[in-house]
Amino acid sequence: MNNIIVAQSGGPTAAINASLVGVIRGAKNSNRYDNIYGALHGISGVMNEDFIDLTQLGEEELNKIYYTPACYLGSCRYKMPSLDEGTEVFEKVFEILRKKEVSAFFYIGGNDSMDTISKLAAYGKKIGSDIKFAGVPKTIDNDLVMIDHTPGYGSAAKFIAQSMLEMAHDTAIYEVQCVTIVEIMGRNAGWLTAAAALARNEYSDIPQLIYLPEVPFDIDRFVEDVREELKKTRNVVVAVSEGIKNADGEYISATSAVSDKFGHAQLSGAGKCLEGIIKDRLNIKCRSVELNILQRAAAHSASKTDLDESLSLGEKAVEYALEGNSGFMPLLVRTSDEPYAYSYEIGMLSDIANKEKQVPTEWITESQNDVKPELVSYMKPLILGEVSIEYKNGLPSYMEIPHLTGK
Amino acid sequence: MNNIIVAQSGGPTAAINASLVGVIRGAKNSNRYDNIYGALHGISGVMNEDFIDLTQLGEEELNKIYYTPACYLGSCRYKMPSLDEGTEVFEKVFEILRKKEVSAFFYIGGNDSMDTISKLAAYGKKIGSDIKFAGVPKTIDNDLVMIDHTPGYGSAAKFIAQSMLEMAHDTAIYEVQCVTIVEIMGRNAGWLTAAAALARNEYSDIPQLIYLPEVPFDIDRFVEDVREELKKTRNVVVAVSEGIKNADGEYISATSAVSDKFGHAQLSGAGKCLEGIIKDRLNIKCRSVELNILQRAAAHSASKTDLDESLSLGEKAVEYALEGNSGFMPLLVRTSDEPYAYSYEIGMLSDIANKEKQVPTEWITESQNDVKPELVSYMKPLILGEVSIEYKNGLPSYMEIPHLTGK
Repeated sequence: MNNIIVAQSGGPTAAINASLVGVIRGAKNSNRYDNIYGALHGISGVMNEDFIDLTQLGEEELNKIYYTPACYLGSCRYKMPSLDEGTEVFEKVFEILRKKEVSAFFYIGGNDSMDTISKLAAYGKKIGSDIKFAGVPKTIDNDLVMIDHTPGYGSAAKFIAQSMLEMAHDTAIYEVQCVTIVEIMGRNAGWLTAAAALARNEYSDIPQLIYLPEVPFDIDRFVEDVREELKKTRNVVVAVSEGIKNADGEYISATSAVSDKFGHAQLSGAGKCLEGIIKDRLNIKCRSVELNILQRAAAHSASKTDLDESLSLGEKAVEYALEGNSGFMPLLVRTSDEPYAYSYEIGMLSDIANKEKQVPTEWITESQNDVKPELVSYMKPLILGEVSIEYKNGLPSYMEIPHLTGK
Repeated sequence: MNNIIVAQSGGPTAAINASLVGVIRGAKNSNRYDNIYGALHGISGVMNEDFIDLTQLGEEELNKIYYTPACYLGSCRYKMPSLDEGTEVFEKVFEILRKKEVSAFFYIGGNDSMDTISKLAAYGKKIGSDIKFAGVPKTIDNDLVMIDHTPGYGSAAKFIAQSMLEMAHDTAIYEVQCVTIVEIMGRNAGWLTAAAALARNEYSDIPQLIYLPEVPFDIDRFVEDVREELKKTRNVVVAVSEGIKNADGEYISATSAVSDKFGHAQLSGAGKCLEGIIKDRLNIKCRSVELNILQRAAAHSASKTDLDESLSLGEKAVEYALEGNSGFMPLLVRTSDEPYAYSYEIGMLSDIANKEKQVPTEWITESQNDVKPELVSYMKPLILGEVSIEYKNGLPSYMEIPHLTGK
């Protein structure tokens, strides 16, 4: 037997299931594998031998999984020990892989997941295993290195730009002065917040101000920026990253930052905090809006470009593994913004895991409150195209997930 | 000359522009009017003689306005004095109406707007004017009396149910216990929060708990409800209205309530407040999500049923005014849930203005933490159908509003 395992890990996106479909289709179409096992809840599912058989999924079901949000196989936040910390966990995983007669393991995820699969590949190499290990990228944060942009980013960017456009209409209607602060995800990278700029058009320059975490945030300068904008218009909308920090590196947040298992600070509250400051200092109507988990979950308005690329990267991962590669992640390398074009390449996981790609400061204006046209040109093609989805009772008909909900 | 004025007032919805298109089309098709004036920013625009000519709008533009969110004509929160307080404002308005040779005035809005147009109708009757005054209903809150449901409600309900479904997928992926609290708009009426129940399906019973403002909210009982649900599942999602109050009638809110010009308390923070309570008392992962203004602004996923009904009610208002009626609002009177059917009737504004329709307590379970099937049957038909909209650069191509943005 010649089987594969596929699993998903990290935070959900609207596109991570499209990559899953890519891996399944790639494996099926290759006619080189017998069974396709899905491990539930990432690497934890492998260790617990919690598998579902994906081999028999038909085209109709795969088409539905393609546009279904979040992780069809569930996720986990398990942190793999380093090889120096002991090999017990690795031995266990490899024992299961051998038992399941697995020749390739595909792990779809972001930074932390690339760390997991990279360590497995390194251990495999060390013990002379011929099992292939491939990472398949996804993260709405767009902060993986080497790849032009990550699957999931385009759909989240599209939702953010669309929400910003709809808020531009919503906030334009009154004659009173008003400031709206929109807090956007992305941790320490400003890619998602920058996407707010895509909402600007012939009749609206909202958001007038954009603050990314790549440059220090100064509260006094922010208040002055807003005051200046209010001289030009009665309706000021500000896009602000959850991860903005002051010059001392402290998060601008109403609540103190708590850390998750990977040591990432869990952020929230920058918008709420700035709302209070504007009300207090400018004595003006101000509200804050947190786009929250809808940014990654709103699959009903996913970017077709994003979902199709995510699917291709899943297929490419299978193709490269079949060519004999291991410890890699398929890459998109852009060759042109307009017309939008890219090629596929192979990146080694050891060069990718545990690194973070931020917005280059050359793409941020000198005033540090907006993005430059180069960044807009970079983002523009990624939100193009709408996904055709089925509806049932007025709601998107997503793929059923009884194996996750227990119903 | 025989002209009409149309204006919009109150909070925006995804459907208020469909009603505007209904008034414009109804007026055009009747061939009984010369000019259609749009007053910018509601009744303030009439008093400031701030009009735009809508007569020349073509079918292509009207089709675009139909699915554009918020108020194409802008809005206001101006509170009309009562007739007892003096007639100065009324005299001014009527002077302008006469100058513009207006024979009918259509005011699209919610509770407060019906108060405005009702007072104008009453003054008109008093002075023997033959100008017709019609209210055209809209409010996402669904709290107008006499009408089966209000334009704007179905689209907001659809967005809420869709977001809840997408959050059901998003929150199902981890193996750790987690509580998610989703705060939903609606002031003192629970109609919007109830719409979260529409997300339940064969594989998900999210949200497991729904709290409406029509019944008193008890924090201890809430904590017990959540604790009970956590015995059955690891992933509990709660839908909670922004307007929930304790037995003493105080808002459950982290921030103290502030009042707007109409004396309505401005609410926010119930979700945040309950998040803190759950973390504190159950020592468990908990987050809160505020759906915020996207509930009323997310026109890209509007309910076609809602937009088409909104349009018809605009047309009906013109038809009834031409029949000689004044001081009225067209009504939808439901005749059947399944198949969904209704008829149109006329309601008098004096019976509608300044009243609030809440969810009948018979439609809330005895445990006061869920809605009954009767309420689900009532809501179900209102979210049906998707609106076909044009896209440009990956975003909805909405009608331009330079007259509001000043660009």
